[in-house]
Amino acid sequence: MAVTGVLRPGHAQIRVMNLEEGVRHYRDVLGLIETGRDDQGRVYLKAWDEVDHNSVILREADQAGLDFFAFKVLDDATLDKLETGLQQYGLKTERMPAGDLLETGERVRFELPSGHLIELYAHKTNIGNGNGIVNPAPWNENAEKGIAPVRMDHCLLYGPNVGEVQKIFEDVLGFQLVERTLTPDGEANIGIWLSCSNKVHDIAFVEHPEPGKLHHVSFYIDSWERILRAADIMSMNDVPVDMGPTRHGVTRGGTIYAWDPSGNRFETFMGGYIVYPDHEVITWTFEGLGEGGGLDYAHRKLHESFLTVVS
Amino acid sequence: MAVTGVLRPGHAQIRVMNLEEGVRHYRDVLGLIETGRDDQGRVYLKAWDEVDHNSVILREADQAGLDFFAFKVLDDATLDKLETGLQQYGLKTERMPAGDLLETGERVRFELPSGHLIELYAHKTNIGNGNGIVNPAPWNENAEKGIAPVRMDHCLLYGPNVGEVQKIFEDVLGFQLVERTLTPDGEANIGIWLSCSNKVHDIAFVEHPEPGKLHHVSFYIDSWERILRAADIMSMNDVPVDMGPTRHGVTRGGTIYAWDPSGNRFETFMGGYIVYPDHEVITWTFEGLGEGGGLDYAHRKLHESFLTVVS
Amino acid sequence: MAVTGVLRPGHAQIRVMNLEEGVRHYRDVLGLIETGRDDQGRVYLKAWDEVDHNSVILREADQAGLDFFAFKVLDDATLDKLETGLQQYGLKTERMPAGDLLETGERVRFELPSGHLIELYAHKTNIGNGNGIVNPAPWNENAEKGIAPVRMDHCLLYGPNVGEVQKIFEDVLGFQLVERTLTPDGEANIGIWLSCSNKVHDIAFVEHPEPGKLHHVSFYIDSWERILRAADIMSMNDVPVDMGPTRHGVTRGGTIYAWDPSGNRFETFMGGYIVYPDHEVITWTFEGLGEGGGLDYAHRKLHESFLTVVS
Amino acid sequence: MAVTGVLRPGHAQIRVMNLEEGVRHYRDVLGLIETGRDDQGRVYLKAWDEVDHNSVILREADQAGLDFFAFKVLDDATLDKLETGLQQYGLKTERMPAGDLLETGERVRFELPSGHLIELYAHKTNIGNGNGIVNPAPWNENAEKGIAPVRMDHCLLYGPNVGEVQKIFEDVLGFQLVERTLTPDGEANIGIWLSCSNKVHDIAFVEHPEPGKLHHVSFYIDSWERILRAADIMSMNDVPVDMGPTRHGVTRGGTIYAWDPSGNRFETFMGGYIVYPDHEVITWTFEGLGEGGGLDYAHRKLHESFLTVVS
Repeated sequence: MAVTGVLRPGHAQIRVMNLEEGVRHYRDVLGLIETGRDDQGRVYLKAWDEVDHNSVILREADQAGLDFFAFKVLDDATLDKLETGLQQYGLKTERMPAGDLLETGERVRFELPSGHLIELYAHKTNIGNGNGIVNPAPWNENAEKGIAPVRMDHCLLYGPNVGEVQKIFEDVLGFQLVERTLTPDGEANIGIWLSCSNKVHDIAFVEHPEPGKLHHVSFYIDSWERILRAADIMSMNDVPVDMGPTRHGVTRGGTIYAWDPSGNRFETFMGGYIVYPDHEVITWTFEGLGEGGGLDYAHRKLHESFLTVVS
Repeated sequence: MAVTGVLRPGHAQIRVMNLEEGVRHYRDVLGLIETGRDDQGRVYLKAWDEVDHNSVILREADQAGLDFFAFKVLDDATLDKLETGLQQYGLKTERMPAGDLLETGERVRFELPSGHLIELYAHKTNIGNGNGIVNPAPWNENAEKGIAPVRMDHCLLYGPNVGEVQKIFEDVLGFQLVERTLTPDGEANIGIWLSCSNKVHDIAFVEHPEPGKLHHVSFYIDSWERILRAADIMSMNDVPVDMGPTRHGVTRGGTIYAWDPSGNRFETFMGGYIVYPDHEVITWTFEGLGEGGGLDYAHRKLHESFLTVVS
Repeated sequence: MAVTGVLRPGHAQIRVMNLEEGVRHYRDVLGLIETGRDDQGRVYLKAWDEVDHNSVILREADQAGLDFFAFKVLDDATLDKLETGLQQYGLKTERMPAGDLLETGERVRFELPSGHLIELYAHKTNIGNGNGIVNPAPWNENAEKGIAPVRMDHCLLYGPNVGEVQKIFEDVLGFQLVERTLTPDGEANIGIWLSCSNKVHDIAFVEHPEPGKLHHVSFYIDSWERILRAADIMSMNDVPVDMGPTRHGVTRGGTIYAWDPSGNRFETFMGGYIVYPDHEVITWTFEGLGEGGGLDYAHRKLHESFLTVVS
Repeated sequence: MAVTGVLRPGHAQIRVMNLEEGVRHYRDVLGLIETGRDDQGRVYLKAWDEVDHNSVILREADQAGLDFFAFKVLDDATLDKLETGLQQYGLKTERMPAGDLLETGERVRFELPSGHLIELYAHKTNIGNGNGIVNPAPWNENAEKGIAPVRMDHCLLYGPNVGEVQKIFEDVLGFQLVERTLTPDGEANIGIWLSCSNKVHDIAFVEHPEPGKLHHVSFYIDSWERILRAADIMSMNDVPVDMGPTRHGVTRGGTIYAWDPSGNRFETFMGGYIVYPDHEVITWTFEGLGEGGGLDYAHRKLHESFLTVVS
């Protein structure tokens, strides 16, 4: 099987400061589908074209941010093998029991040197995308409720020790470095974009002194025209926009960055290109990220908020 | 590494009945870039966003059709392992020497029970996509010369023994069955769409009495708006269109089928969805392919030419 | 005032053979908004971005077709002047009383030599497009209910005496001939596309032996991507598609032709170009309409149904 | 004839501080076609889909800005009538001789109370759009050279006495007020958007103490996808972007503002809606222009540069 090991981003548990306000945002404005609530009060959602039970979990808390970000792996054997690999690398792992998250199997959790909790799991109930699997329609009414991304696509995390994080993702988890931004002296990577698939990125990190911070969770949109629609819906619902619509030089993607009501940044993203393991890494110099258009290809400048505002 | 084994469609050698007419079509109308000619007179081309030296090879011959279709694999070890697997399965393999195709390493060639020659190889010279790999632009002028697809994407082949072919691709080459069409009695697959990646398909087969036939080679386009542009360019250049612009129900893709000057069908294709090994196979009933919209979602009918015209 | 005289297509009264089936089509599938029903049982609808009370009126009858097609004119004085002009030309006019159609003022009705009833009127109640007129949003939820065109745009009528009809529209009503198709001998116009505005057409005629026939009523769509969405919605609702998605060479527009449940053809149309009175008429030869791409630019052929199927 | 009087924006004479640098921008980056140079050294250009000889004239000067902006009128009689109207209103008019601008007839020039020179003319040589007028293709290669707008669409001018300017355009020139922004106290219009056609605007003014200033000349683009392409081409050519891609609330248009090498702002614009004389004026409150999304619908804020940077 050509796609093996770690398959894809599975779920992100996001802290919101007012649960119902958060639900209104992620369900009614972003257009995710609410699929359940658990006895801890957490709310589970999925993008319309995802088949697994959930990809975003909202937890009410005093502070915004990301509790953990998880990847689905191929099967139990892969989970065991990756857990062993993490332990051999020197990371402590913890097994979260099946059922702790709704419709989700046992999870292997570990903390990155960047201060983020990452999880791996092999099972989440397939509840379908609503099209059926016999003579399916290409989409259904959920594809037009709110912004309606097709999937939770990736996240960008801010924290220390990005070099160490890169090693773990490349050497232990089998990810591929797709693009990177150099430090001002060009000696190290200040930003890394990693893929476990053909996607242009499945997770990304930027070096930052404070550990465990969330820059954004990203949701995939099918076309640039639907990016404009996303911008309109944000505006109609008083969602504060940080940047965009524009194109990232990094990944070539069309993008809008905006904030949820708790101050967690999210992205609606389209485009990108297809990635293979034999492709060369694309490098952005430090200046390239700003004036080279890496962040904002239309404006060729860094946005202050990109460097400083995280949750 | 999460993407392993067979990586992607690598090259298709297509027979054209007049070489320069064929070059005019594939280079000037379709917009591939000519990258070389060999001493056998073959012409090598690549799509603008491909980095490897070639993906389409034109050979002048008395009869149109496909000489062979090849996949790039991860590395030499993978090539050896897959060759062994094919032999163990009972297929005869042949090593084509490095350099037989320009800028291409040794190829393992075998014949499918459908009568098609398939090749695997691990090396083809990376010549870049013209954007560079430091602070790259998202595209360049080649992206607008002719129809200008981003890549050669897949092919659909017609021949006997589709059930056997499916087994080889799934069990030996590690492909995944993504969609299928049933025979009228529902007992077997008359059409199969297979992926070795996250792409919705990398190769497809339809049951057909005559062996070794080509239905189409497909080229990927970034948007539905560029599908209209492709239709316009076809019309401006008197390229006969078979079907479309429309949507396939199968794969959800936006499509146009048309013919090169020798009568080889080609496709310009956009959209589709992302595929993972844990996704369920999508099934089209025999009626579903026609009136269910599998072939032509807008018109919900089979086109006679789809079933009968091959090269 | 630069736009004067006849302003725009105002309403089309369409005969449907089953009223509720017709309403389901025009309201729930095409996505017009139902704005009223009168004591004759007629159902009134408007496109979401139209401000006047109605633009499509459905009347249940034994036979499909068009009862009449109307234009809104600038004011009462214009109405009187145009009525006088029609009479001086030799046409009989009739005043339909205000209120005969809901929220619509007095109409001047006359019959064209092609056998079609045309109406002019100066008043129809402005009920807004739902965005408001102070700090308006660019669109609202009605823009995504069904296919949701922005307006009823034009119609194409089939009947005899197209040359005579052209004279009336140009000389009496002040329309401009924008494009035309010649008869096979090139001596006369077999098809004419006429504008009373900057739009590429507001009404069109094709020579046909039977008088008073409807080829299609057309609804304007904002983008080619929304044409694909229209095709999808047609397919999801079993609306039979006649032609498209494709581009007309005539007017350059993106198009789908399809049929309502009674067999009235309708079009979803996008694009076109801007027209001014000093622009030269574009001419399609008789062959040009078919192999020149006038009808179907992608396929460069006439469709039998285009010439023969009317209601 | 339904469209009469003033037809459309005809030409804008723009001052650039280095002629060849200006030509490179307007021709090679924006993608206008150079159609001539006169003995004063002025360079004439047109957008690809315009048929008249020129719409942008570049003049080298020490200071950026707009020399004059002109409208084409229906015919000589209209020109005489409008000249008389302007004089009766109390404005001084001047006749510029035919041939003073290449391929352009006599022009009636007058100065607005805002300090801008406006011209009217009835004749400019039709040189076609390159598609021909018999069985034309929908576009040609010029549609893809540079940003390649279809037309020079409108301008926004800054100066004093906007109320007076509005009266002249409405009462003398027959324009229609389509949208307006109120002063902070709501007593007057601080911004006006005027149409002489079905277009959402043909010229606009914003109240500003300094007379005769140019905010931007705007060029029309066919789709939101081509707005992204425009942004890319700007970035590839180091064109500084002021704002966008985003949507204006005013006119609903998709937009990018950017600067030519001399500091003249220009716009690439798409969308909008269709305007008729019986439509109600849309009003933006002063706050509505900023936080209501009038200027930047995605970001709902005023941009400092919008209010202050003019040439």
